Amino acid sequence: MDESAALFGVRLVVAYDGTDFCGFQLQHEQRTVQGELEQAIAQMAGHPVRVRAAGRTDSGVHALGQVVAFDSARLISARGWTLGLHAHLPEDVRVQSACRCTVGYNPRFDSAGKIYRYLIQTGEAKNPLLRNRAWQLGSPVLPDVARMREAARLLIGTHDFRAFRQSDDARENSVRTLWRVDVLTGFGADPSLIAIEVFGTAFMKNMVRILAGTLVDLGMGRIPPERVPQMLGANALREWAGQTAPAQGLTLLEVKLGRQRGEDAEDL
Amino acid sequence: MDESAALFGVRLVVAYDGTDFCGFQLQHEQRTVQGELEQAIAQMAGHPVRVRAAGRTDSGVHALGQVVAFDSARLISARGWTLGLHAHLPEDVRVQSACRCTVGYNPRFDSAGKIYRYLIQTGEAKNPLLRNRAWQLGSPVLPDVARMREAARLLIGTHDFRAFRQSDDARENSVRTLWRVDVLTGFGADPSLIAIEVFGTAFMKNMVRILAGTLVDLGMGRIPPERVPQMLGANALREWAGQTAPAQGLTLLEVKLGRQRGEDAEDL
Repeated sequence: MDESAALFGVRLVVAYDGTDFCGFQLQHEQRTVQGELEQAIAQMAGHPVRVRAAGRTDSGVHALGQVVAFDSARLISARGWTLGLHAHLPEDVRVQSACRCTVGYNPRFDSAGKIYRYLIQTGEAKNPLLRNRAWQLGSPVLPDVARMREAARLLIGTHDFRAFRQSDDARENSVRTLWRVDVLTGFGADPSLIAIEVFGTAFMKNMVRILAGTLVDLGMGRIPPERVPQMLGANALREWAGQTAPAQGLTLLEVKLGRQRGEDAEDL
Repeated sequence: MDESAALFGVRLVVAYDGTDFCGFQLQHEQRTVQGELEQAIAQMAGHPVRVRAAGRTDSGVHALGQVVAFDSARLISARGWTLGLHAHLPEDVRVQSACRCTVGYNPRFDSAGKIYRYLIQTGEAKNPLLRNRAWQLGSPVLPDVARMREAARLLIGTHDFRAFRQSDDARENSVRTLWRVDVLTGFGADPSLIAIEVFGTAFMKNMVRILAGTLVDLGMGRIPPERVPQMLGANALREWAGQTAPAQGLTLLEVKLGRQRGEDAEDL
């Protein structure tokens, strides 16, 4: 790219079906969402492009509201980007909306919070239409939703979530805030579905999947409810929480932007 | 199969993701649901098996409640069939339940009605998780749901549905009865979804897809509502109704059995 050229910042909301991707982040010789996006954008921009995302998602995890930004030397309207990218992107990635932003804008630093949904199909019979969309428990035992909701209530707030992260994650600060943890039923008029929706400021690796796995373990009676407060202590160990729920049940629903609104308001 | 051996009738409710199938019905060198079922059942029964289904579904059409029956020379419990078949079936076909039935039982003749759901995603942005599950209109124009409901009401009842069948279908009798035609919103808490649910005694080829296409054409203002009564006459032509909605939005939800209850009640 000609470094002397004027650049134009673009922000996209993108949705993807994570099933056939090795996660969001670029990896050598692997099919990734970032790789597909950068290739499609480069074809329109006319030069190589690096995208900056609000966050990564693991292999098999879906997104309806991932936010990415990039800088292009070519001036194209928001509508032009949306329509043009759809010609270059595979069907499992779709642009939901596009807008201008400041050059160098990084949605990761502008993220004020994220909403995830974790979908569970209960019961022994598995719906093949949900095999890549939900954790199919495949058990005749149904989780106790009232107990899951009770535990969910205890998870809300600012806690040390060190028991709810992948065990090799050694970051110092494991204190996070969850604003909302809802256990929803009646999705799609299907009584076999339970959705766990989590809204928090920031998440550690596997955190939502461990939260979902723990709530299911509680609902199935594999963990007693009294154990929840201990899981939230500064001395808590990973094994005190429940299992890591499988990737395919997880969807990044929305990224709440605006943390940088003060400094960076131009046209975001 | 040893024709002298005792036979045991088995009835299954099966669900499948129609995306990667060339429809339900057996076809030479094509991947079909019937083909996969017969292969899996034969491995358990120990002899070739022919399944009888409540109805066919086209390529790309899904089912949650297809009903099939077959006769096996090997006596296996209902639970044994369910668990065993899952070891032999691909992931996009799942047995929902199994029970004994009379030998030779044919769910097609026992079907008292079928419920189909047709799923539509409105709006310009397409959800990639729904690309094989819904008709994605991809238009900023939203269909008028009130108008769709008004037209749906007119379709209920016993009418000549000759305008709502594939044009090469030359069967004499095109009179059918629809008990229920609902236009539902708010599916999966997703405001972009509209589901059309149709419950009728029997359906002609493409009938539900033409009903759905017609309701969408009405909702989008491409067909005036006054035209609906004409479409239901004995002289109606295929072109008077709307377009044929694409296959991937259609799901066979349920087959209502019991038409033969009188003669054939043994253990159905």
